[in-house]
Amino acid sequence: MEIKQFLKEKKPLIDAEMEKVFPRKASRGWLDFALGTAAYAYDSETITKSMSEPIWEYLDRGGKRWRPGLCLLACAAVSGSEEKALPFSTIVELVHTGTLCCDDVEDDSKLRRGKPCMHLIHGVDIAVNNGCALYFIPLTILYRNTENISQEQIVKIYNLYGEEMLRVSTGQAMDILWHKGNKEDISEQEYLQMVAYKTGVLARFAARLGAIIGNASPEQIEALGKFGEAIGVGFQIQDDLLELTGEEFKKGKGSAGGDIHEGKRSLLVIKTLATAVPVDKKRLLEILNRHTTDEKEIVEAVELIKKYGAIEYAAKRAKEIVEASWKELDKALPESGAKATLKSLADYCTERQI
Amino acid sequence: MEIKQFLKEKKPLIDAEMEKVFPRKASRGWLDFALGTAAYAYDSETITKSMSEPIWEYLDRGGKRWRPGLCLLACAAVSGSEEKALPFSTIVELVHTGTLCCDDVEDDSKLRRGKPCMHLIHGVDIAVNNGCALYFIPLTILYRNTENISQEQIVKIYNLYGEEMLRVSTGQAMDILWHKGNKEDISEQEYLQMVAYKTGVLARFAARLGAIIGNASPEQIEALGKFGEAIGVGFQIQDDLLELTGEEFKKGKGSAGGDIHEGKRSLLVIKTLATAVPVDKKRLLEILNRHTTDEKEIVEAVELIKKYGAIEYAAKRAKEIVEASWKELDKALPESGAKATLKSLADYCTERQI
Repeated sequence: MEIKQFLKEKKPLIDAEMEKVFPRKASRGWLDFALGTAAYAYDSETITKSMSEPIWEYLDRGGKRWRPGLCLLACAAVSGSEEKALPFSTIVELVHTGTLCCDDVEDDSKLRRGKPCMHLIHGVDIAVNNGCALYFIPLTILYRNTENISQEQIVKIYNLYGEEMLRVSTGQAMDILWHKGNKEDISEQEYLQMVAYKTGVLARFAARLGAIIGNASPEQIEALGKFGEAIGVGFQIQDDLLELTGEEFKKGKGSAGGDIHEGKRSLLVIKTLATAVPVDKKRLLEILNRHTTDEKEIVEAVELIKKYGAIEYAAKRAKEIVEASWKELDKALPESGAKATLKSLADYCTERQI
Repeated sequence: MEIKQFLKEKKPLIDAEMEKVFPRKASRGWLDFALGTAAYAYDSETITKSMSEPIWEYLDRGGKRWRPGLCLLACAAVSGSEEKALPFSTIVELVHTGTLCCDDVEDDSKLRRGKPCMHLIHGVDIAVNNGCALYFIPLTILYRNTENISQEQIVKIYNLYGEEMLRVSTGQAMDILWHKGNKEDISEQEYLQMVAYKTGVLARFAARLGAIIGNASPEQIEALGKFGEAIGVGFQIQDDLLELTGEEFKKGKGSAGGDIHEGKRSLLVIKTLATAVPVDKKRLLEILNRHTTDEKEIVEAVELIKKYGAIEYAAKRAKEIVEASWKELDKALPESGAKATLKSLADYCTERQI
């Protein structure tokens, strides 16, 4: 099955499962379950308004749920049960949503999925707190485990969680300081590491999680993790690329050009800085460090990037990274429908135009 | 040994252990250990500047390390080894520091331990990201476990972590919305629950953690957890009380009166609102909801609080809560030096004047 069709079918199941893990109302029953009996008394209504409603408003905005989908596929591809993986797959979507809440505050973003960011609706306090809450809400699946899963698997999942979450923070730490312009000559390898941690990591988490639940071999877990990471990196490069070349940019719409305004060191920028003659390099850095909103300057930056062939280069690198990881994964997995869907995810990742 | 002396002796040991868990520089060696070998390349210098230095600048500002101290005492009080508990005890201090970074952004605070908050020095982005990073850094102790501890204990600690961290977020969620004035009639029980989650929870975490490492019985773990929570609640009530009656306030110094400015619903405020005649209640709410900086109004609010005996009431409640938990703990623990130090912590908590 093609990945798009697969995700379309699974999304309602994943969403229903998320509602079980984190109900739309913080009922007394859920609070007792998740936090234990109150020593004093819960204010269920306030918790609902402060946490459940803003978080669900976000989740309802959409998203393809491709990370949980990847988790299900990874489990099925090692002959595990997709059904068994379903509750656990929500971990990565909830954590991912948490990173959106926090990142939007950190980057002072305005829009998320076409609507104002959480901090612009509910305040920075609610957004940061819900971002953090979303890192812990999915752990209820582990610490109140009612699933048929071994203690050894639980430890493996917790270990995975700890490592991947610290990677997320580290990737973000690099990205933030680079935005502030602390380093002119970021190498391509350093850049890819940052993206692997900031964007690839939750896909890696998803794939390894599914593999662990499916009782995969260590080699399979490793290969699936690398594939997930590569997909995440590929998506990010493609995203950066489409922002400057896609329809949105041509129409001057939405967040187009926002990366230039933000001063983002994308692969496009890094390649240009590494290749450009000094005067062009200086000019590009000038525009990026100014956090400009001037459309003329933004177009000028994009022209510089195009001049040095960075667009084609980035597209090629994304393709290489995803294909190399597929080659390894192809060897590690037996043939199956799930494997074919994973392959179509790899292809989609570097070929999509929106 | 008196608690003050105990903490004075342990602080250097705890700090040295924190440096092992999270070194002052994000060296290649530490990054490889904590995050695994880089798929591409680490930018060790940027990670140091972005994470390690701001976090250590915060840790170096002080703090009595009473939460890790409580963890060590809990372990020793159930006949466990303090030495074995030492690395794990840093978990609660690091997580606690993370909550400070995030809370200061959420509350838009200005000062922390006498110096500007992290977000005022390094930006909201660095502060939020480091706050989150501090939730995950200590997990390296668990997922790269090199200590002599069983898999069963590891699962118990992870479970504890998950539950307590979600409690922290939930407590903060209640507090934030109340500050925004969403609810006029917060009951004392609801208030105490919020404090138990926001402030008591990391002390509860610390005590239970020590107990788990010391192989305590379920009853001992429970009683130590309740004691920790009560101590946390007691400290908070005493803090709120001292802010409005202590030397700082009398001199009009520092953050004194900040709780009134913040519109904080402390036990003092809740008790006053529950007891005051309508006109006084209305006036106090007015001042609180205005987030005033006018000194005359702040003094007026404090006078209203004093008028209804809320100061004495809060002091009495703090004492009752701590004493009730001690009564249970006293039964659960054999006599020992550690137990005597725990008792002195209980006494210190409700008797301190600064």
